[in-house]
Amino acid sequence: MAPETGTVAEAGEFGVISRVVAGLATVPSTVVGPGDDAAVVATPDGRVVASTDMLVENRHFRRDWSTAEDVGHKAAARAFSDISAMGAVPTALLVAFAAPGTLGLDWVDGVTTGLRAECAHVEAAIVGGDVTAADVVTLGLTALGDLQGRAPVTLAGARVGDVVAVCGRLGWAAAGFAVLGRGFRSPVTVVNAHRRPEPPYFEGPRAAELGATAMTDVSDGLVADLGHVATASGVRLDLRAELIDVPAKLAEVGAALNVDPLVWVLTGGDDYALAATFPAGTDLPAPWRPVGVVSEGEGVRVDGRRWPVGGHEHFR
Amino acid sequence: MAPETGTVAEAGEFGVISRVVAGLATVPSTVVGPGDDAAVVATPDGRVVASTDMLVENRHFRRDWSTAEDVGHKAAARAFSDISAMGAVPTALLVAFAAPGTLGLDWVDGVTTGLRAECAHVEAAIVGGDVTAADVVTLGLTALGDLQGRAPVTLAGARVGDVVAVCGRLGWAAAGFAVLGRGFRSPVTVVNAHRRPEPPYFEGPRAAELGATAMTDVSDGLVADLGHVATASGVRLDLRAELIDVPAKLAEVGAALNVDPLVWVLTGGDDYALAATFPAGTDLPAPWRPVGVVSEGEGVRVDGRRWPVGGHEHFR
Repeated sequence: MAPETGTVAEAGEFGVISRVVAGLATVPSTVVGPGDDAAVVATPDGRVVASTDMLVENRHFRRDWSTAEDVGHKAAARAFSDISAMGAVPTALLVAFAAPGTLGLDWVDGVTTGLRAECAHVEAAIVGGDVTAADVVTLGLTALGDLQGRAPVTLAGARVGDVVAVCGRLGWAAAGFAVLGRGFRSPVTVVNAHRRPEPPYFEGPRAAELGATAMTDVSDGLVADLGHVATASGVRLDLRAELIDVPAKLAEVGAALNVDPLVWVLTGGDDYALAATFPAGTDLPAPWRPVGVVSEGEGVRVDGRRWPVGGHEHFR
Repeated sequence: MAPETGTVAEAGEFGVISRVVAGLATVPSTVVGPGDDAAVVATPDGRVVASTDMLVENRHFRRDWSTAEDVGHKAAARAFSDISAMGAVPTALLVAFAAPGTLGLDWVDGVTTGLRAECAHVEAAIVGGDVTAADVVTLGLTALGDLQGRAPVTLAGARVGDVVAVCGRLGWAAAGFAVLGRGFRSPVTVVNAHRRPEPPYFEGPRAAELGATAMTDVSDGLVADLGHVATASGVRLDLRAELIDVPAKLAEVGAALNVDPLVWVLTGGDDYALAATFPAGTDLPAPWRPVGVVSEGEGVRVDGRRWPVGGHEHFR
C-alpha cells in the first residue's frame, strides 16, 4: 500500500476494511476468510481454542509512546500468548477496530502491518473483523488455536511436588514502562520490550508435550498470574528468589530509577512470558528456568513470604 | 445474584468477572469454559465458524434508550446472526467488556442477563471474555458456531435464475429508532424491535439444508446487504416492490412520522433478518418470502431502479 495521508472518515468503513484485508496472506486452515458474514477455520483436532482481549487507547497503550505498528504487534501478541498458554498453536485472528474519524490512515496501515507480522510469525491468518467508530482507538482481538491432539494445559493441574518454571522475559516491559513514565526514551532495549513484546509462543505447545501440568502466560505479573494457578489447582507455589534471574540490564535501569528490579521481575506484566508447572524430574530444555516448587497450601510465596502482587487494577 | 448498587470500580476487575460467570449455564460443547487463559470448544465438524463485532455506547446503543438487558440481547443477537447467516448453529460466545469505573453493577448484571438469555435461546455458552476500563461502555462479542457437516453458505454463490428470499422482520428496528429519535416511546412494538431484535437464527441452518446458494443477515439494510451478495456473486439482484411486505404497523408509524415505510423495510438495519438466494423452484417454507430474482449484471434493483442504500456510515 502506498503511504496514505487521509483519515479514517475520508476512507469510510469499507475503505478501512479494504486496507486491512488487501493482499492478506492466507494459511491452509482458512476455509472462508475476511469479507463474509463470518469466517470458517479448519479444526482438524475436533476442538478449537479461543481467547478474546480488548485494548483501549490510554489504558493499554499511548499513541505518543508506541507506534501504530507496535500496537498491532502487542495486540496480536496478547491474543496469541493466551492460545500458547493452553498448549495450542494459533491459527486465526479476528480484529475488531474502533477509532475516531480523524485518525490517519497511516495509523491504520501501521497497526495492520504489526498485526500481520505477528500473524506471519506464528503462521496464523487474519480471518475476519469489524470496523466502527469510537472516540478513542479500541482494538478487540480474538485468537483461535489448535491443540494438535494434545490435552489443553489449564490453570488447574499443578500437583504438590511439581517444579515451577518460567520461559521468556520477565520485568522488561515493566522497566520500559517505568522509563517512559519518567519521560525518558532509553535504554532502548527496555523501552522496546514495553512497546513490542516477544512472547515465547512456540514454548507453549512444547511445554504441553513435555507434560506441563498447569500453565499460564504472564500478562499481569508473575506472582499475580501464578496466583491464579495456585487457586485453580488448590496448591501453594513456593518460589525461591535465588532462582529468579534479574538481568543486568534491569539492575542497571533499576539503579538509575531507584527501583528494586526484582519488583519488575515478580510483578511486571506485558512481557507475556510463560509460567508452568512440570512433574519433578522433567528434563526442561534451555529456555525454561526452574523458579520454585509446588507445595501444599494456597497462594504464592517468595522465599516463604507473601509478595505484594502489584499488577494493574483497570478500574482504579 | 442479589440486586447490587455498587459500581464497577468498587467491585474491581475480578469482581465484575465473577458476576458475569457466576452460575453460568454450560453446554456439552464447552471443553474448557471461562476462567482459564483461553476457552476450548468442541468442533465435531472439523471446522469452526467465527465472527466478531464491537458495540460502542452512543454509536450502537444509548443507555437512556435501551436497558442493560436490551443491550445484552442485542449484542449477542448481532454476533449469533452472523453465524446463522453462514448456515451454522451458534455454540459459544466470548465477551469483552469495557466500562467506566462509575458504571453501576446493576448494569453489568443486566447486560449479563441479556447475553445469557440469548445464549440459552440458541443453546450456546459464554466461554470466555475480558474486562477492562474505558470512558464509554464498549462490548466486543465473538461468536463461534458449528456447520454440522454442511457447506458454509457464503455471499458468493448466487446464480442467475435463483430466487431471492427473506426471513424475519425488516424495517421494524429502523421505525423504532425513528420513533425514539423524535422523542416518543411508543408504539412499543417498534420501539422494542429496536431495543431487542429477534433474529430468525434457526432459519439459517434450515436455509442451508434447503440448498441456499448465498446468504447474509440484514444488519445494515436489505439493499445494502444484498449489495454485498451481488458483488461477491457477480450478479444483479432484481427485487419487486409488490413482493416486499410493508406491515400495517410500519405503515401506521410511517404515516404518523411522515416517512415512507418502504424506506425502513429496504434500508433499515438492526432487525437481523436473513436474506438468501435459492435455486428456482425451491419449495420455501412459510417464514421465507420470495422478494425477487437473480439476473445478469451487477448491484441491486427495486422494480428495475437503483435504490439509495441508506445504511449507516460509522465515521460520518
